Amino acid sequence: MKKIAVFTSGGDAPGMNACIRAVVRTGIYHNLDVYGIMYGYDGMINGDIKKMYTHSVSNIVQRGGTILKSARSEEFRTKEGRQKAYEQLKKHGIEGLVAIGGDGTFTGAQILSKEFGIPVIGCPGTIDNDIYGTDFTIGFDTALNTALEAIDKVRDTAAAHDRIFFIEVMGRDSGYIAVECGIGGGAELVMVPETKTSIKDVVKSLKGLRKTKTSSIVVVAEGDEEGGAAEIMEKVKKEINNDELDFKVTTLGHIQRGGNPTAKDRILGSWCGMAAVEGLMQGKTNCMAGIVHEEVVYTDFNDCITKDKPLKKDYLKLIEILSI
Amino acid sequence: MKKIAVFTSGGDAPGMNACIRAVVRTGIYHNLDVYGIMYGYDGMINGDIKKMYTHSVSNIVQRGGTILKSARSEEFRTKEGRQKAYEQLKKHGIEGLVAIGGDGTFTGAQILSKEFGIPVIGCPGTIDNDIYGTDFTIGFDTALNTALEAIDKVRDTAAAHDRIFFIEVMGRDSGYIAVECGIGGGAELVMVPETKTSIKDVVKSLKGLRKTKTSSIVVVAEGDEEGGAAEIMEKVKKEINNDELDFKVTTLGHIQRGGNPTAKDRILGSWCGMAAVEGLMQGKTNCMAGIVHEEVVYTDFNDCITKDKPLKKDYLKLIEILSI
Amino acid sequence: MKKIAVFTSGGDAPGMNACIRAVVRTGIYHNLDVYGIMYGYDGMINGDIKKMYTHSVSNIVQRGGTILKSARSEEFRTKEGRQKAYEQLKKHGIEGLVAIGGDGTFTGAQILSKEFGIPVIGCPGTIDNDIYGTDFTIGFDTALNTALEAIDKVRDTAAAHDRIFFIEVMGRDSGYIAVECGIGGGAELVMVPETKTSIKDVVKSLKGLRKTKTSSIVVVAEGDEEGGAAEIMEKVKKEINNDELDFKVTTLGHIQRGGNPTAKDRILGSWCGMAAVEGLMQGKTNCMAGIVHEEVVYTDFNDCITKDKPLKKDYLKLIEILSI
Amino acid sequence: MKKIAVFTSGGDAPGMNACIRAVVRTGIYHNLDVYGIMYGYDGMINGDIKKMYTHSVSNIVQRGGTILKSARSEEFRTKEGRQKAYEQLKKHGIEGLVAIGGDGTFTGAQILSKEFGIPVIGCPGTIDNDIYGTDFTIGFDTALNTALEAIDKVRDTAAAHDRIFFIEVMGRDSGYIAVECGIGGGAELVMVPETKTSIKDVVKSLKGLRKTKTSSIVVVAEGDEEGGAAEIMEKVKKEINNDELDFKVTTLGHIQRGGNPTAKDRILGSWCGMAAVEGLMQGKTNCMAGIVHEEVVYTDFNDCITKDKPLKKDYLKLIEILSI
Repeated sequence: MKKIAVFTSGGDAPGMNACIRAVVRTGIYHNLDVYGIMYGYDGMINGDIKKMYTHSVSNIVQRGGTILKSARSEEFRTKEGRQKAYEQLKKHGIEGLVAIGGDGTFTGAQILSKEFGIPVIGCPGTIDNDIYGTDFTIGFDTALNTALEAIDKVRDTAAAHDRIFFIEVMGRDSGYIAVECGIGGGAELVMVPETKTSIKDVVKSLKGLRKTKTSSIVVVAEGDEEGGAAEIMEKVKKEINNDELDFKVTTLGHIQRGGNPTAKDRILGSWCGMAAVEGLMQGKTNCMAGIVHEEVVYTDFNDCITKDKPLKKDYLKLIEILSI
Repeated sequence: MKKIAVFTSGGDAPGMNACIRAVVRTGIYHNLDVYGIMYGYDGMINGDIKKMYTHSVSNIVQRGGTILKSARSEEFRTKEGRQKAYEQLKKHGIEGLVAIGGDGTFTGAQILSKEFGIPVIGCPGTIDNDIYGTDFTIGFDTALNTALEAIDKVRDTAAAHDRIFFIEVMGRDSGYIAVECGIGGGAELVMVPETKTSIKDVVKSLKGLRKTKTSSIVVVAEGDEEGGAAEIMEKVKKEINNDELDFKVTTLGHIQRGGNPTAKDRILGSWCGMAAVEGLMQGKTNCMAGIVHEEVVYTDFNDCITKDKPLKKDYLKLIEILSI
Repeated sequence: MKKIAVFTSGGDAPGMNACIRAVVRTGIYHNLDVYGIMYGYDGMINGDIKKMYTHSVSNIVQRGGTILKSARSEEFRTKEGRQKAYEQLKKHGIEGLVAIGGDGTFTGAQILSKEFGIPVIGCPGTIDNDIYGTDFTIGFDTALNTALEAIDKVRDTAAAHDRIFFIEVMGRDSGYIAVECGIGGGAELVMVPETKTSIKDVVKSLKGLRKTKTSSIVVVAEGDEEGGAAEIMEKVKKEINNDELDFKVTTLGHIQRGGNPTAKDRILGSWCGMAAVEGLMQGKTNCMAGIVHEEVVYTDFNDCITKDKPLKKDYLKLIEILSI
Repeated sequence: MKKIAVFTSGGDAPGMNACIRAVVRTGIYHNLDVYGIMYGYDGMINGDIKKMYTHSVSNIVQRGGTILKSARSEEFRTKEGRQKAYEQLKKHGIEGLVAIGGDGTFTGAQILSKEFGIPVIGCPGTIDNDIYGTDFTIGFDTALNTALEAIDKVRDTAAAHDRIFFIEVMGRDSGYIAVECGIGGGAELVMVPETKTSIKDVVKSLKGLRKTKTSSIVVVAEGDEEGGAAEIMEKVKKEINNDELDFKVTTLGHIQRGGNPTAKDRILGSWCGMAAVEGLMQGKTNCMAGIVHEEVVYTDFNDCITKDKPLKKDYLKLIEILSI
């Protein structure tokens, strides 16, 4: 193997730049040429590909976003699109790929690798932490800390006004951010897609808590089965029907995606990036380089995409105990 | 004067605790007894009043929210309510008040002072910076920096995906936060209640910017005449009608109210608090202690409430120039 | 078991409060009475012990330091001191202890438990991450992020002036903080007690780097065998002997100990605290509740104290590769 | 005037990049060509000069340091050096200069402007806030907040261990950072070059405070007449001579110079930058564009350099009152 390329795809996540940097420098360290593909699969199709040097990735380890940019690609979903993409890779002499992203990115990588036989290794770059084959995804720790700092701020206001706050955090299919925010932020209740919590339960809990606490924080994952934070708040208000209680909602939104990565995400991104390149050099393909129990583990893309990664039971217990 | 009391009212603002601390310690330093009234006018009516000591305000200078809590009081809007409040003050022997809050707080203070002759001095505690008689209000600098950090984070994602982001910041009647965020955050456009910007202007600007920039940030004050950020984005999308452009909206919401105060807000809060107590001791009343041009200035409540505080023209010019 | 007590000892670490909160609430949740012992072993000897309630630990999960305070105790090193301590525990009816701290704390706990048969479980509270039996210690992630943010700031100045900066981070016997800071902060070199790096190696590396980089950052663990950052810088300057190079040193010091804990430290602290109480209830003693590979593991105090926890080899490799 | 140039000189300060950005864009907005001179006077001598475009200053408003870099220049102190510098400016057709820096920068600018008649306007870029002609210097607010956050962290540890902490902040000739940190950080004592505080006074104060407080923080400006924090601590320890008291020292150092600028510094930098260019266009020279009482004011370089900017008396009073 002489030439490899790296790209980011799907939603951006803090630590992606650290990962890109590690891919580039590990490649160069092992005497490979490393190329960067801009805008994910879209740039692959359009040949938006440039050679990377050691200095191309200077001073980015601490930056959010991705210097290679990201985009959705409708064209890549077609056979013709992927053919074009492959021609571009061939044209540049690229013999291996590192794909940084989540489920969608890996699905595309899997097809590309199967259709054209080009080796691909993935790095888990997504804030949602919902990928099987790695204890944590790159970006999760930063998103979590951003959400937690926001909750700390909201708590100041909740306490000052004796309010009940519903705070919506990211997580369409996954309650990871919500659950860890709940523990770390001292939330009274957490609502996640993985567990059923009825509005009646919420109302009962809040009434119970009201006896000892003047303010409460309910953390809601955006994908909860009862709706987003605003919808849940309205349902709860209707049930409680007490004008004296002061309910507010806040949706953290896109701030959770950006920002300088935490130490953990910089290190995780760097580690996965190095492991991806070394995996390619060892002939691995069609798998993701993740960190499980403090060791590099390569997991078949198929498992990454199809296997579940359930919430830790201890965490659900912690929320129940700590909110008393 | 032997006994004074302090309270916070209206929306909480970072730096209120620094102000409370300064009121308490300045009072004690000058051999006054200082009381804290909980929950603003509501607590005054209910006699929720307690003596404060030097240590009562230890370790709070760096905390957001307000240890005296805040609440709206319907009862205080009635003569009977205010009578009760006055009785409570009399019962505790309180001869002077420091009221920390915004316009609504000062309106209440003015009536109380007129009806019962009790001296009151206000401190400008609100994140909106829309109070005449002080260059800055307590909490504004923190809210501004919180909003700015959020914009920095959103910019990472905007740049990674070549997006146009509409970010809504606080400011129902005032564009202060939006304008300063716009300059500090490098926004391409700022929409505030004080100036008219039509949707057509926005569309034209964004199209023009698109020639040189791949991503754009539009900061919207919640009280803009064209609506909030979500509404404006929908209008703009309809006009531009280009499926390739990626529009997103994010509303910063309540996180702007909380958090540890910045240096400026701690110092401003402390300074105003000291000035309020010294003003009471000098016989001043029915006025606010603000800082104008780096000096303490006492401004009649009536002026604080009724006079406008326009946006700086230089700032509007800065936004126009810097967004090229 | 009806009554347990919790205390913190040794250097404070962010997340200790989250741990205390979890101990108190888990105890109460399981119908135990929970006492807090102030000032570690010193307070145990002096009977500085108070009952804790659910609300005693409200609003502390996000705070650095320790509400139970910490102190060194010379008296506890004597048999008489420990006897007094035991008498106080007996007097309060305390049947089990949770000891939050590091090696020194556990050594004391071990002796106490052996001499008087009182069950003790430890929680790993120290920023150094040098305790066997847990992947991470409570406080390490926060200290690491604090150090990293400081390095980010110093890099701005290093880059602006083309300087070589020697930055000293905590770690008397352990290079954990230094190594992870090095990877996350993009340092050119890292010097730690666990590996030998001669001044000649440093000089050679810096000269090599100088060909491609205008500024460099060297992270030094305070316990490196060549000395602290200031001493190493002087040695290097003498060897390089080039007046045009601009060397600077900065010692991060105590800021690494304080601050609001990160998400990870709050969760880790909470989890260990819950596990410690449940361990006591199950009859465990003389061991530490740590988290290994995302599961609670109880490790004999003796192993915690005597066994080594070596640096990850992959991390040393990462530093070598990423600094090219 | 058709062509102007901008440079930074002296110690870097957060907000310098915002200022550079404003100079470049204001120039281009007014149809000027704008050049950037690298490494201050050194780059001017060596002709390290490049044309700047709108996009040259994209995405830097939020970054610490200076993209134009900074350096000391011995050669510029000689007539020959300055002659070379002027030749380079002439060669590039540069008809006006914006000099961002402090006293030393302005001294150089003044000589250059006098010797060769080239118009120069300065912008006050230094963290020390010791320049006459502007209420605040660019970088001061960020340095202050960085120092304050550090003090907040140290306070956690001070409180946990009942310690007396001596914290050294920047300020060789000026106590601005120390005094505002003292107020904002709730310090018990502040020692600055502008006022005499004997070791005896410190000892007396600390003994007095000890009666009511278990921990104390003393903020020391590095240029205090009694020495730096370490030296003062040793003197105090010797006087107090009490082994039970736990003294610690921490020197914040270079972290105060870097980091993302605060809102205030970004706005101040932008505003001064715009004013400098507009001043040059109006024929102004040999003066600094500062902000006094929320308005642009141009002050003769001579006044900036020679006139004193005393500490606010109210601030010294605040420290006395608030530390009770």
